[in-house]
Amino acid sequence: MSDPFVVVGGDAAGLSAASKCKREAPDRDVIVYEKGDWISYAHCGMPYYVKGEVDSIGDLLSLSPAEVRERGIDLHRNHEVLAVDPERQRVRAASEDGTVEQSYGDLLVATGARAVTSPIEGTDLDDVFTMHHMQSAARLRAFLTPPEAADDSALDAGYVDLKDVGAYFDREPPETVAIVGGGYVGVEMAEAFRGWDLDTHLYQRSGRPAPPFGEAVGEAITDTLADAGVDLHLNTAVEALDGDERVQRVVAADGTVDVDCVLVGIGIRPNTGLLAGTGVEFGESGAVSIDEYGRTAVDGIYAAGDCAENVHTVTGEPDWVPLGLTANRAGRAVGQTVAGTPEPVGEIAGTAVLKAFELECGRTGIIDHERAREAGFDPVSETITAGSRSGYYPGNAETTVTVVADRASGRLLGGTIAGEDRAAVRLDTLAAAVHEGTTVGELERFDLAYAPPFSPVWDPILVAAKVLNGHLDG
Amino acid sequence: MSDPFVVVGGDAAGLSAASKCKREAPDRDVIVYEKGDWISYAHCGMPYYVKGEVDSIGDLLSLSPAEVRERGIDLHRNHEVLAVDPERQRVRAASEDGTVEQSYGDLLVATGARAVTSPIEGTDLDDVFTMHHMQSAARLRAFLTPPEAADDSALDAGYVDLKDVGAYFDREPPETVAIVGGGYVGVEMAEAFRGWDLDTHLYQRSGRPAPPFGEAVGEAITDTLADAGVDLHLNTAVEALDGDERVQRVVAADGTVDVDCVLVGIGIRPNTGLLAGTGVEFGESGAVSIDEYGRTAVDGIYAAGDCAENVHTVTGEPDWVPLGLTANRAGRAVGQTVAGTPEPVGEIAGTAVLKAFELECGRTGIIDHERAREAGFDPVSETITAGSRSGYYPGNAETTVTVVADRASGRLLGGTIAGEDRAAVRLDTLAAAVHEGTTVGELERFDLAYAPPFSPVWDPILVAAKVLNGHLDG
Repeated sequence: MSDPFVVVGGDAAGLSAASKCKREAPDRDVIVYEKGDWISYAHCGMPYYVKGEVDSIGDLLSLSPAEVRERGIDLHRNHEVLAVDPERQRVRAASEDGTVEQSYGDLLVATGARAVTSPIEGTDLDDVFTMHHMQSAARLRAFLTPPEAADDSALDAGYVDLKDVGAYFDREPPETVAIVGGGYVGVEMAEAFRGWDLDTHLYQRSGRPAPPFGEAVGEAITDTLADAGVDLHLNTAVEALDGDERVQRVVAADGTVDVDCVLVGIGIRPNTGLLAGTGVEFGESGAVSIDEYGRTAVDGIYAAGDCAENVHTVTGEPDWVPLGLTANRAGRAVGQTVAGTPEPVGEIAGTAVLKAFELECGRTGIIDHERAREAGFDPVSETITAGSRSGYYPGNAETTVTVVADRASGRLLGGTIAGEDRAAVRLDTLAAAVHEGTTVGELERFDLAYAPPFSPVWDPILVAAKVLNGHLDG
Repeated sequence: MSDPFVVVGGDAAGLSAASKCKREAPDRDVIVYEKGDWISYAHCGMPYYVKGEVDSIGDLLSLSPAEVRERGIDLHRNHEVLAVDPERQRVRAASEDGTVEQSYGDLLVATGARAVTSPIEGTDLDDVFTMHHMQSAARLRAFLTPPEAADDSALDAGYVDLKDVGAYFDREPPETVAIVGGGYVGVEMAEAFRGWDLDTHLYQRSGRPAPPFGEAVGEAITDTLADAGVDLHLNTAVEALDGDERVQRVVAADGTVDVDCVLVGIGIRPNTGLLAGTGVEFGESGAVSIDEYGRTAVDGIYAAGDCAENVHTVTGEPDWVPLGLTANRAGRAVGQTVAGTPEPVGEIAGTAVLKAFELECGRTGIIDHERAREAGFDPVSETITAGSRSGYYPGNAETTVTVVADRASGRLLGGTIAGEDRAAVRLDTLAAAVHEGTTVGELERFDLAYAPPFSPVWDPILVAAKVLNGHLDG
């Protein structure tokens, strides 16, 4: 065929698109370029591999290169696409064998995001890690593992750089670690490091961890981290990492701590350099602007996954919330669209869940009042704490729910949850209501499940809706 | 005041109404008649008390008589209301002290339901139990407890008939039990009896347990019961219970089994005799017909809880689904309405969850195809099985989801779920979607929570919606 579907990036969005296109249009050529070795791996599982809860790094791989090829996809690993020429509809990719040019009928840019470390100094020292690539996770797990327990089977993934990782197996494990950044990665890695019994310092610039989860969840995480023995440095900027080749000290506003290892998790940025100058447009976030089918401003070029924005279902405006389900879904939709049946990439609600040791945390929709006001709402919110089960039933746990609504319409704008008993899954009721534009008065009357082992008569979400609705009426 | 709010029945609906009315209109006289000793108790917790998972029967009581009176409610226990005179707006109640007449401005009938045992013969034999009253639960737990372990503290509830229960403490526990009926009560009590290590036979007339949960859940429960060592007699009608004073045998279509104890759980019926001849109307179910505010056809008379119908949110028609949340919510709404601010009792979705040993089961909406057709829909359904967490994360468990939709509109009519990992709470996403009239195409695009410990990238509910939607498109 003269109009192959070319995909840049072999992870969630890229391979979802490639697979779906090939399934729907088996005769079409589908070509995927991935700049590294790794394809189709579970980013979100890396902290649990480092912790040792997931045995082998191979468990985090969804698809092997062979499986991708069995689907009829022409996969090229270690091929970095360096340029896109939208006029001639061609891309240029480089590998150690040289440079190739490839024409495309449709092009999907699914280049993902990268971990940032600036503006912190000293992040190029040895033993400073980020948690954005599998090789980094492999190194860190090896470093944490005592030499006598070193186990190559944990690396059974086909393409770990064993020499690089082996050097960490040979070393004595770190005793003290600092985590810079209290977002998802920081909180999940705190659990991983405490699982190895490390003295763990967590630095967070603002006053609470996981800011997108709001105040009530942030406080619950703070308490949980403290109970788990994490040494929390809130409202504390890290000024520099310091050491001689290897990192040895964290220099922060509240003093200096000697460390053996540092994990930096202060955010990610979309990888969009490839599209500079092509005519593709970018949003305020820096990620690629797309329409409801994932199309960029340039004919024939799509973007999906962590490098692209998506429309937020509450505001109707583009937003950048790089998460796994969005990448999979948008990629799959683009694959279907380029195969001939246009499929919307879907809207996002900013739904996210986070495990902080045994605490399950979740958020969906718009919870920040300022952001709600910017979107034209008059936000009002309420936080309640209620049981997760009937009070007399074993396992009942306090569950804190915050709901945010628009005062005039009563529409639910967003909500958060924190609790040790099924809180994360309970969040989905709020996510569904946010998608549907449900009012808190309607939500209060939802016929939700009740049985003593699973929920009290009034589910915590119903309690929250009831209390907030009472205030709206008043 | 000359127009007291009179409530017949001191359980969920009645006391919710009384409490809400008194809170909203503190000056109004609120009078509650309860025919027995027990008020405000958790029906749904009784199996777990019998099992021993809930220590004391007192744990199942939400409110003591003293607490009710502290709210300013004039509570009369052991007062059976025998007659309602809608012309003169009076009720007549009998107690051991004689008969009282009481005028009302508003009357709420919240008389609940009763367990039925007919048409099975021999249910009046000793050691045949139902699970619809606390005294019965107290007896059964005492019977199951070996004499040497008898513990009066388990009866610390203020008003257990200790003499009656004590007789069971003195007896050797049963070794073999038969459960007649494989609905909620039967399945939950199978868990309770196996918890005491009894040989447990469960008889179910139809081909699967818990028929309202549909085929896929029924099969999952069947497997679970078999794995738990319950001797299942499906498609088997019990003809009679037989014995000499005490029950000794179950005579069924598939033969006779010697037993020491029988639990009958073949259904409940609304208690509506009090309203016969008053002009109040009844639905096909035999329960009281009400409007959206809980009003019956007779001025000033309301009904709520297990004795009343409610509007089903999918069909828009009255339905009788006697469950705890509905009773609490409808009672509370009536209390608010009679206090002066009309509040709808809310619609139901027929949402229900059931624990079958470690299996969590749920259902919501309309899942039976014939019933869907009667309501004017063209039902189509799909059942899928998917993981509850990322495949590599410990605790991942198979979760089976059925979704039912209307072919033409794509509207989700109902769904079921079964699985050992958080399935019951996951059902609420479907319940929310059923309330909102969501299409499966919309449901497929909900931004639900994903993190490896809690959910796979594609939640089982998204998978089910995706598969069904694919069939609707075709």
